[in-house]
Amino acid sequence: MAKELKHMTKRAENYSQWYNDLVIKADLAEQSAVRGCMVIKPYGYAIWEKMQAQLDKMFKETGVQNAYFPLLIPKSFLSREAEHVKGFAKECAVVTHYRLKATDDGNAVEVDPNAKLEEELIIRPTSETIIWNTYKNWIHSWRDLPLMCNQWCNVMRWEMRTRPFLRTSEFLWQEGHTAHATREEAEKEAQTMLHVYADFAEKWLAVPVVQGVKSETERFAGALDTYTIEAMMQDGKALQSGTSHFLGQNFAKSFDVTYLNKDNKPEYVWATSWGVSTRLIGALIMTHSDDNGLVLPPKIAPIQVVIVPIFKGEEQLKELTAKLQPVIDGLRELGITVKYDDADNKRPGFKFADYELKGVPVRLAMGGRDLENNTIELMRRDTLEKESVSFDGIVEHVKALLDDIQDNIFHKAKAFRDSHIYECENYEEFKEKVKDGGFFLCHWDGTEETEAKIKEDTQATIRCVPYMFEQTPGVDMVSGKPAKYRVIIARSY
Amino acid sequence: MAKELKHMTKRAENYSQWYNDLVIKADLAEQSAVRGCMVIKPYGYAIWEKMQAQLDKMFKETGVQNAYFPLLIPKSFLSREAEHVKGFAKECAVVTHYRLKATDDGNAVEVDPNAKLEEELIIRPTSETIIWNTYKNWIHSWRDLPLMCNQWCNVMRWEMRTRPFLRTSEFLWQEGHTAHATREEAEKEAQTMLHVYADFAEKWLAVPVVQGVKSETERFAGALDTYTIEAMMQDGKALQSGTSHFLGQNFAKSFDVTYLNKDNKPEYVWATSWGVSTRLIGALIMTHSDDNGLVLPPKIAPIQVVIVPIFKGEEQLKELTAKLQPVIDGLRELGITVKYDDADNKRPGFKFADYELKGVPVRLAMGGRDLENNTIELMRRDTLEKESVSFDGIVEHVKALLDDIQDNIFHKAKAFRDSHIYECENYEEFKEKVKDGGFFLCHWDGTEETEAKIKEDTQATIRCVPYMFEQTPGVDMVSGKPAKYRVIIARSY
Repeated sequence: MAKELKHMTKRAENYSQWYNDLVIKADLAEQSAVRGCMVIKPYGYAIWEKMQAQLDKMFKETGVQNAYFPLLIPKSFLSREAEHVKGFAKECAVVTHYRLKATDDGNAVEVDPNAKLEEELIIRPTSETIIWNTYKNWIHSWRDLPLMCNQWCNVMRWEMRTRPFLRTSEFLWQEGHTAHATREEAEKEAQTMLHVYADFAEKWLAVPVVQGVKSETERFAGALDTYTIEAMMQDGKALQSGTSHFLGQNFAKSFDVTYLNKDNKPEYVWATSWGVSTRLIGALIMTHSDDNGLVLPPKIAPIQVVIVPIFKGEEQLKELTAKLQPVIDGLRELGITVKYDDADNKRPGFKFADYELKGVPVRLAMGGRDLENNTIELMRRDTLEKESVSFDGIVEHVKALLDDIQDNIFHKAKAFRDSHIYECENYEEFKEKVKDGGFFLCHWDGTEETEAKIKEDTQATIRCVPYMFEQTPGVDMVSGKPAKYRVIIARSY
Repeated sequence: MAKELKHMTKRAENYSQWYNDLVIKADLAEQSAVRGCMVIKPYGYAIWEKMQAQLDKMFKETGVQNAYFPLLIPKSFLSREAEHVKGFAKECAVVTHYRLKATDDGNAVEVDPNAKLEEELIIRPTSETIIWNTYKNWIHSWRDLPLMCNQWCNVMRWEMRTRPFLRTSEFLWQEGHTAHATREEAEKEAQTMLHVYADFAEKWLAVPVVQGVKSETERFAGALDTYTIEAMMQDGKALQSGTSHFLGQNFAKSFDVTYLNKDNKPEYVWATSWGVSTRLIGALIMTHSDDNGLVLPPKIAPIQVVIVPIFKGEEQLKELTAKLQPVIDGLRELGITVKYDDADNKRPGFKFADYELKGVPVRLAMGGRDLENNTIELMRRDTLEKESVSFDGIVEHVKALLDDIQDNIFHKAKAFRDSHIYECENYEEFKEKVKDGGFFLCHWDGTEETEAKIKEDTQATIRCVPYMFEQTPGVDMVSGKPAKYRVIIARSY
């Protein structure tokens, strides 16, 4: 085992520490000099770029356009929508001055007290307020609707406890903001984007998700309904991985955005917003990875195939490269990302461990004996299975294998998830069992009191009213009152 | 003429107002509620996305990787590099607090005085300081070099006078930051990126540029040399469109970044940084556009071809669509972006004016008579020439035309630029002539005094020591002293 892996905590020892170790050791991200803000390193950023490219395509296919709105929001905007101010006013970075000046000794800088802003500005924690203040001027008649914009940007929420990707003060995300003529259309849009997220999570990240509606307490500040995708991590905890909000007319009313309908009468516009963030990288890591490092789904892996020639001397390397070049070219022609690692300052064992750590889905290795036998060694990262296969037809073999790995890790994650969803109607049993993780499908009386009690007793929260389970009426396990539907309860990140 | 154009200022009347009008009317951007920050609207952002995609590809081809560094920079970092603090400490957005709280009446928010940061944070005006503080931990030996990262992000400089795209408090850009083992390698890298920018400007934006070196006064704060591409706008003014800096060891020394060389001895690392921004959209507009609106080079136009059917009633539209569909499909198969505008709530005249305004390179229109004659009307935006051509072979015709337009607008801009470069050795003549714009190729004695006098007398500045002209020694037209080289002097944006 190479030294990269030596000091990596095992999942069974300490899942949380394993995660933190892996983020660092796989070169994904690190803490920065600014509290709670991370540096996303090239390998981590390459994963984000692949996510962005695919999501962006999926958004555009639904008619969404990209735009860019200012980073800073006037303080007063946050007060315009009552619910929103409660939800977001708390922990924000506040800009109060616009100039520094040299200190008297000339060796440092200090804030220039003469450069105080009349109104403080907030670094966006999310952009509903400034966007709706802008939409006011863009929307006049029914012909201007629907208006569907998205932006890829950074946002900031001054979190007290941070963990790389999962919760950081600054993070990268996309935020879509749409305006519609009718309630029905806006609700449909919010659902459409939820399904886009679910599709993306399952088909690209191979992360199975539970789609559903949030309880009132867990809703986005200012929304009438929040739809969510909830993924289960390997410790059985839930990770909220994307949300889509039906905002009703709240922002339109606060920012006075009306349109003239076909009868030429003014009406308030209906809104949605939806976002996913760099947190998805956390979901990816915690769903698939193992004690040897990352396991990446082929569709999102920055390097899909690594080829390592095992050689003694220039001559043999030349021979191996000549043999392997058509494989490299053939894979690349199929759109597969290949790294050919012929560096001579690292041992093959070191390379192998490093690519395992980084979750490269397929590793090919070839040495002198393979040349003689017309074989090649193939390792798949998901199962760590290694086999010697015929060199002939290796390109097609690898292509099929990548699809197989993508399927396999999804089904593995789904099987794990499904075997950790428990129907539960007994609160004592629930309290005992929830400590070990899992999603609990329980009847809920719909009251905040019950929700609060569960949280207080167990730290678990209502994740959503899931779409995937039949909604039979029953009895709330906590209050004993009648319950109209079942919810997923879990501890969460 | 459609009403969009009615109130647009002509270039000859007021070039500056024409620019501002065009940015608004072509739906590129608008001022936001935050002073000096703009909203980039979908059509403007689509241009930026095309620029990004191409530049990103070109960067990666040179071995650069993307990453992401924090938005906020500790105030003390700005003091670490003496030159840098002078250059950037002035007009910055300063974060002093991390929380808001509800006002006593609960209807608004105010800054929580208890949430004052121990050390103020600055919104990045550029990221050298925080990146070199990070690189310190990434660089240990010669094996870690070169390190070449780029980030696409927002930055903020609290400008007093702002104009959309050209100078805004917040703007979008990319900033590349590289670390090298030797001086030669770093200088070469800075040059390589300058050439990437020049290539991109000329081949993609069709904007001819003068490449050269900045004078000491105009250098980036902390650099040993700044290389620049300077474009000429239609009013003869220069627009600095991209810069690449050879930073020497200044940042490595300030942030103590050393590497062990092959002899195992510590040495300071050599640095470069380089960036282009949304300002390029300003360069694009002011180089090519005319009194009818934008003129976009085909390679960067969000819509390359618009097809407008001219119809009376559903039946005729159906017939036209059936005839046009193979053209739409054929163009798209060639990777050409086509908009088929069959909306029935706008007159063709309105549509034509709108696409002219938005600079769509090629417009095809087809009506009943064209159907009979097997013809189609074709308009090219660069010359506004309209002709009726045979419907047969129209796909290939349009493809060739797009290439021709790309060439034509580049050569037009280049001819304009070249005819406005003047060799000048007489200061009186220079002072008179510079008022009308143009690039002046003059001998310079290399002193700050001369540079300052020219600026004071004429508002013109030394743009660069250009590579494209022979560097003969001569006499400075201002001081009469010997001059080693010639510089480009111009008024600029």
